[in-house]
Amino acid sequence: MEKVSSNKLRIFINQCLVSCSFSIEDASIIADLMTEADLSGADGHGIFRLSQYIKRIKSGGINIKPDININKESESTALVNGDNGMGHIIMNFASSLAIEKASKTGIGWVGVKNSNHAGPASLYAKMPLKRDMIGIYIAVGSANHLPPWGGVDMLLSTNPIAVAVPSMNEKPIILDMATTVTAYGKIKTAAQKNEKIPEGWMVDKLGNSITDPNKSSEGFLLPIGDYKGYGLALIFGILAGTLNGAAFGKDVIDFNSDFITPTNTGQLIIALSIERFSSLEVFKQSIDKVIKSMKSSEKLPEAEEIRVPGEGSERIRKERQVNGIPIDSKLIEKLNNLAKDLKVKPIQVI
Amino acid sequence: MEKVSSNKLRIFINQCLVSCSFSIEDASIIADLMTEADLSGADGHGIFRLSQYIKRIKSGGINIKPDININKESESTALVNGDNGMGHIIMNFASSLAIEKASKTGIGWVGVKNSNHAGPASLYAKMPLKRDMIGIYIAVGSANHLPPWGGVDMLLSTNPIAVAVPSMNEKPIILDMATTVTAYGKIKTAAQKNEKIPEGWMVDKLGNSITDPNKSSEGFLLPIGDYKGYGLALIFGILAGTLNGAAFGKDVIDFNSDFITPTNTGQLIIALSIERFSSLEVFKQSIDKVIKSMKSSEKLPEAEEIRVPGEGSERIRKERQVNGIPIDSKLIEKLNNLAKDLKVKPIQVI
Repeated sequence: MEKVSSNKLRIFINQCLVSCSFSIEDASIIADLMTEADLSGADGHGIFRLSQYIKRIKSGGINIKPDININKESESTALVNGDNGMGHIIMNFASSLAIEKASKTGIGWVGVKNSNHAGPASLYAKMPLKRDMIGIYIAVGSANHLPPWGGVDMLLSTNPIAVAVPSMNEKPIILDMATTVTAYGKIKTAAQKNEKIPEGWMVDKLGNSITDPNKSSEGFLLPIGDYKGYGLALIFGILAGTLNGAAFGKDVIDFNSDFITPTNTGQLIIALSIERFSSLEVFKQSIDKVIKSMKSSEKLPEAEEIRVPGEGSERIRKERQVNGIPIDSKLIEKLNNLAKDLKVKPIQVI
Repeated sequence: MEKVSSNKLRIFINQCLVSCSFSIEDASIIADLMTEADLSGADGHGIFRLSQYIKRIKSGGINIKPDININKESESTALVNGDNGMGHIIMNFASSLAIEKASKTGIGWVGVKNSNHAGPASLYAKMPLKRDMIGIYIAVGSANHLPPWGGVDMLLSTNPIAVAVPSMNEKPIILDMATTVTAYGKIKTAAQKNEKIPEGWMVDKLGNSITDPNKSSEGFLLPIGDYKGYGLALIFGILAGTLNGAAFGKDVIDFNSDFITPTNTGQLIIALSIERFSSLEVFKQSIDKVIKSMKSSEKLPEAEEIRVPGEGSERIRKERQVNGIPIDSKLIEKLNNLAKDLKVKPIQVI
């Protein structure tokens, strides 16, 4: 395991993207968001994905100069056409639009089509948060790994949701979860690290557990709460995909194996103005109380501590800001080969 | 087990409520919604709750002539003060308001405070559905049965979500789920029927399984997907409760044991206009395709069929419309004692 400072990582990503003819502005937006993913512990969604993104870019599967435009619009809603650009840039645009609408009418619900993988869900839920709004992000995952409950055909993805809620003196609550027991990125990370995966994450087509992440292609992920997680994945897919005219179900392109076909990824961001319901101060103080109350619950015998969503991630963020972001040496090697191809400077480890 | 026709059940509930001085109009709204709960198989949330509601009404814990009013309002949002009325009437009002806003601005997000238990979540998600809109309903449950993950203090309820999505020729998709592995109503129904509950539904304060529903007070419900379900219950509680100035966490009144203290129940309804994103026809046809595609997946060896959310409930509904609603004889007896007290005619079984 090597370590890289967040600043050096950001610069590295930026240079790789600029070398692929992204504009300085777009490269900087993507590099910032990808680095934020790694900083906050979303190890399957940051630098880990760079080679894959670049492979798709080089194969013509991503539009590096997209005309991101508003396809439909009303006071509180919009449908954004991402023109097959990088998901990060499209979602950055959509989030700003949702925030703008929320500040006018109380809520902004912005759907996105013709987008691409945009990293961890929390990145976008955190955007309204910076403006003291509640942020909700839902996405159609970029590869199908989940069958309908009782089935074996992988028609659904991990379709995640992230919700960010501002607080006063406590850390904000940031829920970021897949509707499957685990995210596929964690399977990929485990395979990369040569680690086993726990029972209950994946099963094969006969319903038997898979614990070797290298055998992941023989089976599928399990949803949370059995048929309930399937129901959530289905509904999230409809809200972020079908409603926006984006891919869902059979139409989802596996971005891990197909580097050319436009993915038509669907995403959805909601910004909600707290002040339309409560004074901001009263609300934030109430959230502080909620957090304190949860954390001070009596514990189960085996529990070390009680957390609120986002707390673990915030702890990792602080630690990584000081000590750097841990990156597997194999991944560093892979990235440096990429750097060579792109004629940019190798990644600088601490 | 006795059977009662939905019409007779509706009349019985109506008469009980009118005898408690509800207006004809309000009694009719509540009776319709409670009967719909039983028809669609939400057995823990319909007639099963009538005695409990009436006990609270007679104890002065519910305002039978509430001044339901809009506390705060913007183009796409509103905060409704339910004035401690029956949840059904308040949510009926809030849902109409959300639909009205959605038809103007694309979306209506209406929060509710000073409300009460309103029956199964699907009832309200189905209201925008009737207007070809997507409906989303979230509620703070009316009794805490869930601790934060790793804890034992029951600071959270089953906080359910329901989402209804219109289709063309297929039945609409209607997800209605608690964030716990099971709803507390199912524990109560099992106790009533003297049935055991499966492992994985409840554990005691040492983390051991509870399978006797009569021992439910010794433990708590388990969330779906471990910490994920806890995260969802927390977020839903904040969105439906804290944001609206309604009770959440420690402040939630257990409506199973306290019949006097106003519950200040919080709920939330979202109506979303599909036409702001897609032509209604195209969308509904796409949903039909999604449904067909899920249902035609190859099955796991032990699976009988693949369903979409709402399908089981719709099947029950059809059967009960023809054959009547099954009600436990003990419950019939209890209801007839109630009828005697209220001086209304006994419930008429088939």
